[in-house]
Amino acid sequence: MDIRIDRQSAVPVYLQIRGGIRDLILSGRLPDGFRLPPERTLAKALGVNRTTILSAYRELKTDGLVEAHVGRGTEVASQQVLKSEAEPAGPLPWPQLARDGGVREPDPLVRDVLALTERHDVISLQAGLPAAELLPLAELRRVQEEILVRKGPEALLHSPTEGVTAFREALCRHMVPRGIRTSPEEVLVTSGSQQGLDLVARTLLSPGDLVVVEEPSYFGALEAFRSARVRLLGVPVDAEGMRTDILEALLARQKPRLVYTLPTFQNPSGAVLSPARRRHLLELSWRHQVPVLEDDTYSDLRYEGSPLPSLKALDPYGHVIHLSSFSKVLFPGLRLGWIAAPRPLVRQLALVKQTVDLHSGTLGQWIVEGFLSSGLLSAHLARVRAAYRRRRDVLLEALAKEAVPGLSWSRPEGGFYLWCRLPDDVSPASLVAHAAAERVAYLPGAASFVEEPSESSIRLNFTFAPEDDLREGARRLGSALRASQAEPRRPSRSVVGTPPIV
Amino acid sequence: MDIRIDRQSAVPVYLQIRGGIRDLILSGRLPDGFRLPPERTLAKALGVNRTTILSAYRELKTDGLVEAHVGRGTEVASQQVLKSEAEPAGPLPWPQLARDGGVREPDPLVRDVLALTERHDVISLQAGLPAAELLPLAELRRVQEEILVRKGPEALLHSPTEGVTAFREALCRHMVPRGIRTSPEEVLVTSGSQQGLDLVARTLLSPGDLVVVEEPSYFGALEAFRSARVRLLGVPVDAEGMRTDILEALLARQKPRLVYTLPTFQNPSGAVLSPARRRHLLELSWRHQVPVLEDDTYSDLRYEGSPLPSLKALDPYGHVIHLSSFSKVLFPGLRLGWIAAPRPLVRQLALVKQTVDLHSGTLGQWIVEGFLSSGLLSAHLARVRAAYRRRRDVLLEALAKEAVPGLSWSRPEGGFYLWCRLPDDVSPASLVAHAAAERVAYLPGAASFVEEPSESSIRLNFTFAPEDDLREGARRLGSALRASQAEPRRPSRSVVGTPPIV
Repeated sequence: MDIRIDRQSAVPVYLQIRGGIRDLILSGRLPDGFRLPPERTLAKALGVNRTTILSAYRELKTDGLVEAHVGRGTEVASQQVLKSEAEPAGPLPWPQLARDGGVREPDPLVRDVLALTERHDVISLQAGLPAAELLPLAELRRVQEEILVRKGPEALLHSPTEGVTAFREALCRHMVPRGIRTSPEEVLVTSGSQQGLDLVARTLLSPGDLVVVEEPSYFGALEAFRSARVRLLGVPVDAEGMRTDILEALLARQKPRLVYTLPTFQNPSGAVLSPARRRHLLELSWRHQVPVLEDDTYSDLRYEGSPLPSLKALDPYGHVIHLSSFSKVLFPGLRLGWIAAPRPLVRQLALVKQTVDLHSGTLGQWIVEGFLSSGLLSAHLARVRAAYRRRRDVLLEALAKEAVPGLSWSRPEGGFYLWCRLPDDVSPASLVAHAAAERVAYLPGAASFVEEPSESSIRLNFTFAPEDDLREGARRLGSALRASQAEPRRPSRSVVGTPPIV
Repeated sequence: MDIRIDRQSAVPVYLQIRGGIRDLILSGRLPDGFRLPPERTLAKALGVNRTTILSAYRELKTDGLVEAHVGRGTEVASQQVLKSEAEPAGPLPWPQLARDGGVREPDPLVRDVLALTERHDVISLQAGLPAAELLPLAELRRVQEEILVRKGPEALLHSPTEGVTAFREALCRHMVPRGIRTSPEEVLVTSGSQQGLDLVARTLLSPGDLVVVEEPSYFGALEAFRSARVRLLGVPVDAEGMRTDILEALLARQKPRLVYTLPTFQNPSGAVLSPARRRHLLELSWRHQVPVLEDDTYSDLRYEGSPLPSLKALDPYGHVIHLSSFSKVLFPGLRLGWIAAPRPLVRQLALVKQTVDLHSGTLGQWIVEGFLSSGLLSAHLARVRAAYRRRRDVLLEALAKEAVPGLSWSRPEGGFYLWCRLPDDVSPASLVAHAAAERVAYLPGAASFVEEPSESSIRLNFTFAPEDDLREGARRLGSALRASQAEPRRPSRSVVGTPPIV
């Protein structure tokens, strides 16, 4: 048998021999039933140890290429090529071919609402979008023209997986007001914060791992974690953010691989994690050696009150992974976000990102770099903060006017959303139906929970719709709520009151 | 105990009870050692079956929250909160935290070459890049200005996960010359073909699955498959493309989940799958019910000969997943590619893409749509085809002039690369060292193989470097090869010639 062995190859010799014999069998040079030489004979001929041949034959057996028979030695296995016609058995069963659990259909209620937002007569308080008419398009043109003159074709070619270096430098300066001092080597540019979530999940999490999330939490993050097939543990959020006392009790009994939090203007609740809880959360992270993923997407959009340092700013030990995005403050369509984390983790995330999409869009990175370095982003932020504050107040006032009994809502100091608790006598499904009739859309609260929540809520965005639409949207929502309340039906939540045993 | 049960919830009652008791324990309302009521008592109090309580208690035991003791019933487990100081045990061991096998360091030889290409005095024949100086920047400006006027902020906002509808329509028209008739619902826009590969791997493959690839193959695809932790089976490529006879023998014994092929201007070999083998490959796919992933990234770059229909064009049964990209023919930095596949698969891929990065860049999709619909891409393709053909011929001539004994190479009819077999007395590692001294870079062949290949090869790109650089690059490569040959050293490949047993 013509088998070549390269003793300086990184491939073990037994695998080289396996490969050589496999090629001889597959190319037909060793026919069905051909008896391979006894291990000892082949070992001598190739000048290798007998155990090497034994290992090679064992691999070939696993490959289904040879069979061992007592008394007859090792023979090439019969090659039962199916002699059927070239007609296929039928079309491929694609849903069955999808790997088990890899694909989840979206929540039907969310799907209904998304279908609703595509109608042009609907006022959408659903999406987490910035105000379209305030997007700085003229500045975009100017910045891009300057880039094309200065960088030429380079701005349209490939760029490093970690991100354009000048952009990462600008991101470091951008994080200083958050209290973060870091270097470009500790920054990874991502295709939006969604990719950041997915990369962290792919890099740090294995199926079955435990991940702590807030309840409610950002539903896109829940989806990314579910797609990594981890077990989610919810910790409730109150007016001061995540209940770190409950997290502490949980960490005493469980070993999660990650704690995911949105400490500032939490999506969807709008809550801000208090300074005391920030410290508590970090102490828990240090003590239990569990990394904290800080999703800091909204902190640049504060309308009142004093800014708080980010978790990463308070963490000298490098346990915090800081995640952020330009989708809420600039152009969502450019798909740009970033991660700031310790260098060894950035290195690993970059290796994963390379197989995922090579790198994020080069031109987009140069455009946002231009906005950051020229001060155009700061000017834009000042403008939208003023507008969003007014829009928040308009929606708060309009909701108050509706006076739906049992409806309550948050008054956030920043961010994108009001979080509304529904009256007990309103079922989520009935409200979606009446909202469709009234032509208004919102995000049903259940999407933000790990398990079915005990109370029903909805999330209302106040940044996308202009002020008149916010007023009209609140009016339509009020009508839908009242219609839902007036509906003759048994309550959807038959709460069983139990006699106190304790 | 205050436990609420919602009988209309989708959450099973036993999990609701588990959740209620868990919250009572974690919030401290049920202290350590507290004895839970006997199953029968609680079942009666809550008006549920006793087995429901049994199930709830079993879950709580799995959660580590309660312990069962013979004779004492079920008690709240002791809550051993670590009372250590807030000092962490040390920085987190990030590489150890990364999920097992998730991150591979790049091949050291490839890394050396990449480091080399960052030097400005080096002529790079390494990367798979289009000619930078031919990129149509003026047209880009015009197209984008027209979009911003016509679409306004919409071009910078979010867009559907599947891709901008007008862009998908344009892609359908773009595929007609490939023989493909399809509809926008069967098209998914991806962030480059790399994301297409990753999405297919994530959607269809589970760890341990078998995937057939050509040897050599596109190394970025091998990385994407390895990252999905599948087993790769190599089928050799010759001048007519994949050896479908060997694939047939392999399919008789193995059940791969996917066959990955680059049928036209194969990367790196430049081979074109012959019409007979195209038919044979499809027959095998139909007969064995195995999907074929057709990577058709280079077919628009044919410099001579007649175009062949794509595999998808020849497949009436929907077994072929067609993958392509704009990175070789337009702007790589925009990160845009696409998949054309049966509708149920596109639906599943889109659900995965949604958790991965929501959608690809909106502005980029409108820009490429503009190039497609206005005919600007066709005009650009005509221009670069002429230039690349000249560059290919320049590199072929220059290589021939070098007259390095034992060096041989392909003469491709299209695409981006020459594939060169190295002389037997040149070791890959020694050549990289001499090439660095001579200031020329290429792709080492081993990166394109599943296992260490028996022959050494290199891939030379002829589209990025201008003609003078190609001539000078070939000269430097010739010097490096001769220096490598002249080096006094034992041959790196100690091939053991074995006496023929067969």
